[in-house]
Amino acid sequence: MKILEERILSDGIILGGDILKIDNFLNHQIDVVLTDQMGQEFYRLFGEGNVNKILTIESSGIALAVSAAKYFNNCPVVFAKKGKSANVGGDVFECVETSYTRGVEYHVQVSKRYLNEGDRVLILDDFLANGEALNALTEICKQAGATVVGCGVAVTKSYQPGEQRIIDKGYRVESLARIKSMHDGKIEFMG
Amino acid sequence: MKILEERILSDGIILGGDILKIDNFLNHQIDVVLTDQMGQEFYRLFGEGNVNKILTIESSGIALAVSAAKYFNNCPVVFAKKGKSANVGGDVFECVETSYTRGVEYHVQVSKRYLNEGDRVLILDDFLANGEALNALTEICKQAGATVVGCGVAVTKSYQPGEQRIIDKGYRVESLARIKSMHDGKIEFMG
Repeated sequence: MKILEERILSDGIILGGDILKIDNFLNHQIDVVLTDQMGQEFYRLFGEGNVNKILTIESSGIALAVSAAKYFNNCPVVFAKKGKSANVGGDVFECVETSYTRGVEYHVQVSKRYLNEGDRVLILDDFLANGEALNALTEICKQAGATVVGCGVAVTKSYQPGEQRIIDKGYRVESLARIKSMHDGKIEFMG
Repeated sequence: MKILEERILSDGIILGGDILKIDNFLNHQIDVVLTDQMGQEFYRLFGEGNVNKILTIESSGIALAVSAAKYFNNCPVVFAKKGKSANVGGDVFECVETSYTRGVEYHVQVSKRYLNEGDRVLILDDFLANGEALNALTEICKQAGATVVGCGVAVTKSYQPGEQRIIDKGYRVESLARIKSMHDGKIEFMG
């Protein structure tokens, strides 16, 4: 998605070689015009999938999911909770992941009330690098017996293992910007 | 706001006497039609205030803020980060609050890049009970030299001290549903 790539080039900040901060339009400050355009693009990609629910994970996925929902017939958004011992109360679907960057375990949970057999779920998230969050969300859909229509991601670091990991599990992954490399402060996108 | 009160009565769950869960339309699953209507109502209340930025706090405030932003001329949304030792990187405005319910300290932070002198800020949040989050967000605006146009809240427990605390600091507080009491599983709203 051209406008997202351009925005990453103009506003993204590379820290410590491999950390891309896009704090000023997605992860801390949110440009709602851009998230709306991204939502529309996800509809172009997944609009034929009879999506009836959008699943994301707190916090940075929420803006994207809410912006996209209006294009998907105003379907409900569910955001998974994460924490060291997250408990949303009552019966939950849960997946425990280990953060690659921080080396700690965290729990991803969704209440059983909000994900059901028969749901056709679009999973959305802001970043895909090692794939922990997307893996957890797909596992949770599997536990619920829900169908994953696909995974939509704002920014994927395609040189890290997450994208292939999720594709290898049989899921469709669509990323609005796919980063091929980040060297010497220079970002190169996949062609 | 009638439709919100009705939704709280039909879908809210009271736990342990004083905990109101509105997980199925705001805090875990999000009804984007309702958050849009709430955003529009915030515009009715604060539309004359020349708001140029909406400030909220992760995670449950984000959906509300993104929904409201389109009515406020698509202004940027900034969500404060919270955590035991949250660090959004670089220079931040910060306020440390003690959670009334859990008794632990937590840090609320906003990067100095995203809040400036001259900003006219609408603060939005999902719940107002003891007022910790709103207090932190108003303090952060004060540190930034930004003007707080007002505080908009989805659900306020008016029998708890937060609402008066924020009003006593000189801020305008508008709540879409004000709960007068919760007794024996029965919710009564302010007239």
